Amino acid sequence: MILPRIGISIGDPGGIGPEICLRALSRLMDLPRARYILFGSHRLLEREAEALGLFSSFNPWDKTVESKAEGVYLHDLPGGEREIKKGVSQAAGGRASFAWFEEAVAEARRGRIEAVVTAPISKLSWGLAGIPWRGHTEYLEQFYPDAVMSFWSDRLTVALLSHHLPLSEALARVSKESLARLFRVIRDHAAGTFAGGSFEILVAGLNPHAGEGGLLGSEEREIIGPAIETAHREGIPVSGPYPPDVVFRQAIDRPERIVAALYHDQGLIPFKLTAFESGVNVTLGLPFVRTSPDHGTAFDIAGKSPADPASLIASLRLAATLASRGL
Amino acid sequence: MILPRIGISIGDPGGIGPEICLRALSRLMDLPRARYILFGSHRLLEREAEALGLFSSFNPWDKTVESKAEGVYLHDLPGGEREIKKGVSQAAGGRASFAWFEEAVAEARRGRIEAVVTAPISKLSWGLAGIPWRGHTEYLEQFYPDAVMSFWSDRLTVALLSHHLPLSEALARVSKESLARLFRVIRDHAAGTFAGGSFEILVAGLNPHAGEGGLLGSEEREIIGPAIETAHREGIPVSGPYPPDVVFRQAIDRPERIVAALYHDQGLIPFKLTAFESGVNVTLGLPFVRTSPDHGTAFDIAGKSPADPASLIASLRLAATLASRGL
Repeated sequence: MILPRIGISIGDPGGIGPEICLRALSRLMDLPRARYILFGSHRLLEREAEALGLFSSFNPWDKTVESKAEGVYLHDLPGGEREIKKGVSQAAGGRASFAWFEEAVAEARRGRIEAVVTAPISKLSWGLAGIPWRGHTEYLEQFYPDAVMSFWSDRLTVALLSHHLPLSEALARVSKESLARLFRVIRDHAAGTFAGGSFEILVAGLNPHAGEGGLLGSEEREIIGPAIETAHREGIPVSGPYPPDVVFRQAIDRPERIVAALYHDQGLIPFKLTAFESGVNVTLGLPFVRTSPDHGTAFDIAGKSPADPASLIASLRLAATLASRGL
Repeated sequence: MILPRIGISIGDPGGIGPEICLRALSRLMDLPRARYILFGSHRLLEREAEALGLFSSFNPWDKTVESKAEGVYLHDLPGGEREIKKGVSQAAGGRASFAWFEEAVAEARRGRIEAVVTAPISKLSWGLAGIPWRGHTEYLEQFYPDAVMSFWSDRLTVALLSHHLPLSEALARVSKESLARLFRVIRDHAAGTFAGGSFEILVAGLNPHAGEGGLLGSEEREIIGPAIETAHREGIPVSGPYPPDVVFRQAIDRPERIVAALYHDQGLIPFKLTAFESGVNVTLGLPFVRTSPDHGTAFDIAGKSPADPASLIASLRLAATLASRGL
């Protein structure tokens, strides 16, 4: 049995990322068998581990002489030379967290790891450091423009047509072309992902009551309906548009159903309300697996009160499951 | 003890409205003590009751010689002369359901009833009948332009800045003035409504992550934030804007918290996902109480399989509670 290699970028040093990585990997027995490789600074992790009373002696990750043993490895990278203040956005944290993530992606693109799991970064820290991307997914989109942000939990699976955009811009992205791309990416990915290969896509409308026959908006009749019909003719199991306030009830606790949501909060409001600890962000449409927790840096508690690694653990589990299927 | 008078318009005759009215009132022992007055056609209700095996002998509602006894009354109105097809929108159904609702509102405006509870109508039937309003709340807004659509359940209370508008139009309605009006209506209404008079308003942002400090949209900084500050200075207990995918988690199971949602689905997606049977639509900002179930005509099951009166029963209960406070 080949054990999947799961790269983990440890996130913004001012947030809870390094802490939840250490906490999650200190419970290795609760995780699937895999080779977990941390991308970050050894010095920083040592400092964090000492403060938390956790273990920080990792195997070094040697790209050339590859170890086949399960366990936790560390790809030691610069960025932890000086202590970074907890709880605030800062350029140093942005630079470091970006470099660690960038290296993990580069290794995945070179085929040296099968999955990238990303601890939370701060968009503001990236901005202060002059990083031109708004987040992990935006960075990945430069290589993979069809990348789709999706969210998985025990109760609900949601794929987003667009994500980190002002709502007015998100509305302008609803087109037959963008919908066709979304349906195809879900189809291509879902085939290898869902147990048994059986799945269906339920598409949310854009307007109240899915436009109510044109009375409350025209996008359903002019754009979304026709896009669904076209995809259906191509054999994609897709239906809708359904009223946005009904479709999530139709999909909840039905693991074979994926809701295609047309903007960030349409999908994230129901997802976060129902997926308490098990929520995972999954990027579809990449040649490798990418998952991450569905929460942020939690600057308000970072370094003050213990952070819960549950969503990171769920991300590592899902990454290992998905990566194993590809091996 | 004066028993409140609760008017009930029986809804579109092609939908489940008349059926759930009959079912709800056949369980009078489960309802608060009140005078329930049906606004609809006796002939139609008789036909429905016969088909369902339910009771249909109601006391006539005499406006002039008013009865003080609790029980079910009927204000018999035209519109049930010929049988109306179940399961479809049609002009005759639109005309009748509008006339019944209109009469109930007129009686409430004359002070002859304290509450109006509306069974579901079809916006399409109203359109076919040439009725120029999109729904109950829109009709009420001609008299009460500050009327606010809100949704109440055991788990969540949500008030909407706008409701039946295409999403793009709803975005254009987000202004300092409209927010100030919303906060004031909630404050004025909530004072007499919430047990103990203690409540707080949590305002959702418009954009993902509530704009993330301006990176994902400017409305939070330019419009919503300043509107909240102004209202706060006026002594209204309001805070935010909170990330839309977080604020509903902050308010759930906290009955003193009301979420101010900026468009229909922002509020209705989380509401319908969590309020299964207990959901009630409440119009704030009127001089009388108005509640209704949070579902539609259910044309797909009307006349075919039994309809569940749970949401109407919850609407009657809440109407009786709110109306009693005003007596």
